[in-house]
Formats: sequence, C-alpha cells, structure tokens
Amino acid sequence: MRSHTYVDSLGMPRIMARILDGKGLAKEIKEELQVQIENWVKQGNRAPSLRCIIVGEDPASHTYVRNKIQAAIDVGITAETIKYNDRLSQEELLAKIQSLNIDQEVDGILVQLPLPATMDERKICNAVAPEKDVDGFHIINVGQLCLDMPTMVPATALAVIEMLKRFKIETFGRNTVVVGRSKNVGMPIAMMLHSDRNHDSGLGMDATVTICHRYTPREQLEAFCTNADIIITATGVPKLIKANMIKPGATVIDVGITRITDEQGKTKLVGDVDYDEVIKIAGAVTPVPGGVGPMTVAMLMHNTYQAAQRIQKAKMQN
Amino acid sequence: MRSHTYVDSLGMPRIMARILDGKGLAKEIKEELQVQIENWVKQGNRAPSLRCIIVGEDPASHTYVRNKIQAAIDVGITAETIKYNDRLSQEELLAKIQSLNIDQEVDGILVQLPLPATMDERKICNAVAPEKDVDGFHIINVGQLCLDMPTMVPATALAVIEMLKRFKIETFGRNTVVVGRSKNVGMPIAMMLHSDRNHDSGLGMDATVTICHRYTPREQLEAFCTNADIIITATGVPKLIKANMIKPGATVIDVGITRITDEQGKTKLVGDVDYDEVIKIAGAVTPVPGGVGPMTVAMLMHNTYQAAQRIQKAKMQN
Repeated sequence: MRSHTYVDSLGMPRIMARILDGKGLAKEIKEELQVQIENWVKQGNRAPSLRCIIVGEDPASHTYVRNKIQAAIDVGITAETIKYNDRLSQEELLAKIQSLNIDQEVDGILVQLPLPATMDERKICNAVAPEKDVDGFHIINVGQLCLDMPTMVPATALAVIEMLKRFKIETFGRNTVVVGRSKNVGMPIAMMLHSDRNHDSGLGMDATVTICHRYTPREQLEAFCTNADIIITATGVPKLIKANMIKPGATVIDVGITRITDEQGKTKLVGDVDYDEVIKIAGAVTPVPGGVGPMTVAMLMHNTYQAAQRIQKAKMQN
Repeated sequence: MRSHTYVDSLGMPRIMARILDGKGLAKEIKEELQVQIENWVKQGNRAPSLRCIIVGEDPASHTYVRNKIQAAIDVGITAETIKYNDRLSQEELLAKIQSLNIDQEVDGILVQLPLPATMDERKICNAVAPEKDVDGFHIINVGQLCLDMPTMVPATALAVIEMLKRFKIETFGRNTVVVGRSKNVGMPIAMMLHSDRNHDSGLGMDATVTICHRYTPREQLEAFCTNADIIITATGVPKLIKANMIKPGATVIDVGITRITDEQGKTKLVGDVDYDEVIKIAGAVTPVPGGVGPMTVAMLMHNTYQAAQRIQKAKMQN
C-alpha cells in the first residue's frame, strides 16, 4: 500500500492514489492460511487436498494451474494436477470427476476453464460435488450465494470483496458500479456488494450497486462511474475506464487482464483501467498485474481449506 | 391500458401516464393459458395439477391461496388446498411435501409463506422437488435463474418482466432502478433486467440496473430514480416514490402492497408509489391494486403449466 505525490501541469503538488497491493495482501493471507493449516494438521487432521484438472494444451491455462499448485504447496495443501490431452471425451472427464467426488482423500476439485469446445462447461461444473467445488461454479453454490447463504464463492469475486474489507474501503450505503456481467465475476460481485451484511453468508456489503455492461451506452457508463465511490471493472477491454470517469478519491478495482503488444513489440498484461491517468484522480487503485490476480489464487486456497473443514465437520456429524 | 389528459396549475393540458392494467393483462394471459391447457388435455395429457399448502390461520394468506386456487380452476388446472393448523410440526410438513414430490398426479407444489416461526422456511423451500417448485424458491431454481438458464422464476418477478414485454416497454441499454433487494422479488428482477437476452433463459432484458435498498441514502435514491427510464419498486413503504423522483415519460412498476387505514377509518391497499402525483409525470404506471398483483397469480398458473409440460417431457425421455 503506497501513496505518493506528483506535480501537475500547473506545478501543483498532488497526492496520487493509494496502490492496493494485491500481491502483498495475497502473501499475507497465504501466510495466515499456512499457520491455520499447520494447526489443523497438528490437531490430527489430514492436510487439505486439491486436484486441478486441465484438458488440452492452452499455455495460459497451464500457467494458471501451475501457479495454483505452487500456492497450494506453499500453504500446506496437498495438490496434484491431472492433465489430459484434448482428445479426452466428456464422458471420460465426467467419470474422473465422479471418482474424485467420492475420493475421501480429496477436498477440492478444480476444472480449469476453458474446456475444449466439444464439452458442455455447465454440465462439467455441475458434476463436481458442491462441497468440493472450490471454484464456486456449481448451480447449488450459485444459488446459495444469491440467497446470502454460506457457500463456496468464485475466487475472483471473493478476492474483490476481501480486498475491500482488508483495505478498509467503506461500502455501507455507498455508490458502487460493477462493469461487466459475467456469471463468474461481475454477477457474484454485484450480488455480494448489494446484499445485507447481517445475512448468514457474512459477505453482504450493503452498497447501492449499478451493473453496467456492453449495452450500457458510453455516456451512461461515464455518468454512473463519475458518481461512484467504488468502481469494479471486469470486462477485458483495455483503457475502458478513464480518468474523466473517476470521482476524486474513489476506489477503483481492476479485475480485467488482457495481454497486449506494446509499440516496442513487447507483450504485457494490462487491466481495464487507464492506470497512469486514473491514479492521479482516484483515492485507491489496484494495479495489473499484482492486484486482483494474486488475490484470486489466495482465495482459492482459502476455499480449499474451507472445503476441507466443512467436509470434516459433516463427517463428524454423521 | 388508458391514457388521459389533465390541466396543470398553469392551465396547460398535459397527458397523464398510461395506466398499465395488470388485471386486464392477467385476464388475457389466463385466457391464453386456458386454450393451451385445453389443447394439452385434448392431446391426451392429464390436466396440470397444483397443490397449495397453508399452515396456520393468517387471513391474508388464506385469501391469497383462495385466489390462486380460483385462478387455477379458471384456466383448467386441477388444484387443491392442503390446510394445517399451526401445531403442525416441521417434520410432518416435510413428510407431506415428500409425498407430493413423488405423487405422479401432482405437477406443482406451493407452500404459502410465511410459515409459523418454529419452521425453517429455507429448509421447507428446498424440500420441494425443483421441477415442481412453482414458486421458484428452491436453491437450484435460484441458481439456474442467476446463471440465465431455463428455470422456474418466482411469479412476482416473472410478472414484472412479462408486463415490460407485453406492454412493449423497451429495456435494451436503458437505465433501470430496482428499489428493494428481497430474494423473492427485487433480486430476481434485477437479475433478469441486467442479463443477456441471448442466453438460454430468454428472460434477459439487457438493461443497466441499479439496485437500491434501505441503506441507499435518500438523496442518492432520488438521483438514481430521476435518471431512470424504468423504476421497479418492491419495498412495502407507501409513497416512497414521489413525483419529483420521476423522469418525465418514465415507466414505474409498483410491486409494493401495504394495507393502510385512511382518514375516514377505511382500510385500503396501496403501493410504494405516490400514485396520484406520479401519474402526472410518468409515461406509464402500474396501479395498486390491479397492477402486478393479478399478474403474479397469472404467472403462477404459467409456472404450473410449464411444470406439467417439463415433467411430461422428462417422462417421455426416460
């Protein structure tokens, strides 16, 4: 968390936005998890255990899975990657998931998306036992989330909410805008933001929330953003959110990740936010990379440990 | 659907809002359903069949159930009320639901809320087989709704969407405000309003949506409403929505129903909208009573017929 000053075009010193360091926060959370899991194991429990299934050769997907496995190992979660080439049939994948569902040694199951086009992703997501669904994509987990019940929350959405909490960004009664309506990111974030904090999930943020998307006219998007205390953007459109759309002092959380090639021919990752300009107006901004991305991996570890605890608790009650 | 003129305080003639006649539209929909169900039965199918369970003596609940049963009979649905006094235990209620779940003669099961305080409403709602859950309250139906999948949509929320469609109120890219965040009304309406119309449910409306609630500051509620093309209010707070909060020509859908006692000591039903003033500014308004209320009952009949069709189709496929 840094903040620094710059001199504007009139020679006036200005304070620039707090940079919300997701990488540092993720490290902190993983260290907490490591201690918790160490204690859990000391109490005689098996270490939490995660299986990541990946189908096909998409290099970005392989990188994501490697990062998740490494994070798991770092915090004391037993983790294995199960790799298939893209000739795997949907029936074979469903059979594998079924065997993991009943495997007493497995707490969390993650199927890396996207899957080959021949497969029905919705069917695959619903095949994972809800209590092992650490991605939170199963219909039952979505239903529970939308009813403010304790559930498994998609890791990216949970990362955003956790960042708001840990960085002490007030949400109660505040105007928030979610840009993007994807079912794994924008939708669950909007759901938690507007919900009642006294409900069972404990994840409600009591904010007013506006959901904008591709069919929100540009001038309306600008108007909603300019009026927002918090903007959360998850569209994959670089520089969609510009400095003139930011209320001075507002918080901007950038979930977008797009790989672009710059003028020198180098590739780099950028978010949805025109970062260099927005930091001059906003009160707090997440960088890309190093913002929501690492936090997503940390929250996946949180979900896996939570799955292990709940499965163990359910066993004790039976 | 009426519209009429009045003379304002400067002696200028003005056109008053279209009154969106929910009662008339509900009649139309029920007549359509009656024809469809008649054909369904002519094709050799059993008439769709609904069971309404009511526990306790709340007079309003008994009136609602009577209205639903009458509507069912009108459209050709076989309907029965199952009445219990409030000494019924939760286990007995669960056992009854279970027997209806497996009863081949039953397509729709409705448990009238509220239930006695001794019961866990969420548990009861989840006990109804999802395919017979004509109220759309089961976690799986909520999950499907929030993922834009074909599902059973809570009747009041579906009533609002159906009114927008039938009265040809454009929603694509428009600013909409939902006031109230209840899980049976406000939340599902907001979900359909902002979603993609090309998704499987066919219920997405592609609007920008702002969800306001009890913690939205008054001046912010006013600002969002004033900027809205469509306001949908479901709070139970009489006269919450005033004329100065309406953009000229906007559509106002009033889901609120509150029983009040007027100055003459008479009781009457009112909505959330300051109706007499709002109709002077808005382009279209639903009255209370006679707006969303009768449409809710019609959509419950729609859900019951849909349940019967889906159950029959599933049988044929097995």
